[in-house]
Amino acid sequence: MNPPFLSCSRRVRRTPFSAQVEAAGVKAYTVYNHMLLPTVFDEIEADYRHLKTHVQVWDVACERQIEIRGRDAQRLVEMMTPRSLTRLDYGKCFYAPLVDDTGGMLNDPVLLKLDDDRLWVSIADSDVLLWAKGLALGLGLDVQVFEADVHPLAVQGQKSTELMARVFGDDVRTLGFFRFRRMRFGTQDLIVARSGYSKQRGFEIYQEGWEHAAALWDALIAAGEDLDVRAGGPNTIERIEGGLLSYGSDMTRDDTPFECGLENFVDLDMVEGCIGHAALKLHVQNGLERQIRGISIGGSPVPLCTMPWPVHVDGRRTGQVTSAMWSPDFETNVSIGMIGSEHWEEGTEVTVETPDGVRPGTVCTLPFSRSA
Amino acid sequence: MNPPFLSCSRRVRRTPFSAQVEAAGVKAYTVYNHMLLPTVFDEIEADYRHLKTHVQVWDVACERQIEIRGRDAQRLVEMMTPRSLTRLDYGKCFYAPLVDDTGGMLNDPVLLKLDDDRLWVSIADSDVLLWAKGLALGLGLDVQVFEADVHPLAVQGQKSTELMARVFGDDVRTLGFFRFRRMRFGTQDLIVARSGYSKQRGFEIYQEGWEHAAALWDALIAAGEDLDVRAGGPNTIERIEGGLLSYGSDMTRDDTPFECGLENFVDLDMVEGCIGHAALKLHVQNGLERQIRGISIGGSPVPLCTMPWPVHVDGRRTGQVTSAMWSPDFETNVSIGMIGSEHWEEGTEVTVETPDGVRPGTVCTLPFSRSA
Repeated sequence: MNPPFLSCSRRVRRTPFSAQVEAAGVKAYTVYNHMLLPTVFDEIEADYRHLKTHVQVWDVACERQIEIRGRDAQRLVEMMTPRSLTRLDYGKCFYAPLVDDTGGMLNDPVLLKLDDDRLWVSIADSDVLLWAKGLALGLGLDVQVFEADVHPLAVQGQKSTELMARVFGDDVRTLGFFRFRRMRFGTQDLIVARSGYSKQRGFEIYQEGWEHAAALWDALIAAGEDLDVRAGGPNTIERIEGGLLSYGSDMTRDDTPFECGLENFVDLDMVEGCIGHAALKLHVQNGLERQIRGISIGGSPVPLCTMPWPVHVDGRRTGQVTSAMWSPDFETNVSIGMIGSEHWEEGTEVTVETPDGVRPGTVCTLPFSRSA
Repeated sequence: MNPPFLSCSRRVRRTPFSAQVEAAGVKAYTVYNHMLLPTVFDEIEADYRHLKTHVQVWDVACERQIEIRGRDAQRLVEMMTPRSLTRLDYGKCFYAPLVDDTGGMLNDPVLLKLDDDRLWVSIADSDVLLWAKGLALGLGLDVQVFEADVHPLAVQGQKSTELMARVFGDDVRTLGFFRFRRMRFGTQDLIVARSGYSKQRGFEIYQEGWEHAAALWDALIAAGEDLDVRAGGPNTIERIEGGLLSYGSDMTRDDTPFECGLENFVDLDMVEGCIGHAALKLHVQNGLERQIRGISIGGSPVPLCTMPWPVHVDGRRTGQVTSAMWSPDFETNVSIGMIGSEHWEEGTEVTVETPDGVRPGTVCTLPFSRSA
């Protein structure tokens, strides 16, 4: 069955790269932060193979930058995340869960500190602008909160360093993982980070403004002809294999960072100013009841996972699968879900209720690995 | 050219009516509040003709209900809107622009007061939940803010009263425009309102929970067989003709309620507690520089409007068109846009830069009318 069509309007915003994306033959989009996010150019398995072999240019402008500027900028962000910002320096990309007063996840952005009084919150799919503005106004903080005119373009894949070096110079080869630096492209100094929503090597370029966006895209495509560069987008198979969570799919307001396996990004002893501090403290004291796991699902390729699939052990519900897809490389259906503490040990046998029947499944750690 | 496909995932949430919508042969969706909104079932002009002639059932579950509950519930909503809530009584649907501290539009929901300490904010496409929660936490208000498990289903079209009477009883015939009442369906007492996102007669049923949703849909379809009832959705042609604005398309954070022609829903002298009060006061004192208008655009059917189209007079930019489509009934391209004060008089001749060339246009009032 073909997927449905997407009705387009101004509300589903185009990006500075949309014309290039269309010329490259985009077949499908999703909508992310009220904006078009290209997802398929060829077939999802062909896109996956290409991403793992060559290099792709992704229009991820939908990763909007919520700029927080002013004397209280860092203080506001400290209220929003349970991760300590003491090590948040210029030049570091900082993955930081955002939580509400219940400890529930509101977003999982990457923070970029541009200056002592200026941060970008590079967001997943929820209106963090409204959350930050509401808090700031309610508390009377001295900050401005707005959506910056910034549009990330990702370069992802094994050959991404070579391609980036051709366009931005050999300097990119020295950029550490999750580090950023301003780099020259034409007349622009753009923030370039070694980051991205894949487990392949990759970079994200923070294009500022619309004027030079097409030139940036075109330069990357032109420079990579012999590298077999082409347009791509976040690939569901590859990101599930890699254990990259999707906010809204694998985690929602109903889940805490601990349940999402993000404990390495929470510093409860250092973040008493965080809005979710008390709730998360109590949550940890009470003990975790469920957590994110991989689940390998047996049988033929599963249908699309658009609703949580119940997971059972001995006929009793123990969790749910929230993302799933056939993996050609692992020759199984890879999936991500929440599993109850009694059954979250690696190797636990479960059953998964998919739309076309009950399947056997095996709990595993994330990312998926060959030995699993 | 065919529209692109939509990639589906849990993040793009299904509704309690999605299975019915699919069985009815939905062809296209848009994404609204992170949820599927069906837009096309046949062809957009056939759907339009059917809506204007018969009756349709619409899955508008994406009109999420942000529930605000607690001692400070009304106080919080008073901070969010420049419309006075003194006449907000149980049983009234209350259209209310929401603004930020600059007076910019954040949403244009319908408010339903269920009790003195309990309101539903029936939202357009932005995360009002985060805005309301942020304000409430920042201010230390005594409220809970959450997304209720409520899923509106609309019944729209000339024969909607007859269909509703068959399912909910003749009592619906006495329901005034923008009034609601609890009505019986099976074992449920559901809020039913005479409202909806069309200019045809219509109702919205606030289905609570998932369990009985399919039965409600099926009952409406079964009862209307001889009325030629079928599945539908908000129709862009009909809503532009009727002058119904779309948040995100025709109005954004950059526009004030005055610019959006919503002055009847602003009571600046009565809402000093509103966050946007000072900014809107100043805005009015300074005089309006632009406002929403209809623009009739000449020539053959225009392409899809997915970016603002510049509007010029004498070679100088005076505004932009943000929604446009060919209207079979008006035999012209109907459109909505912002027009500068020097040129917003009805009948002003303008030019519109569409993607396939410059067209002549004529400014008119909204809704479009035969005499225009």
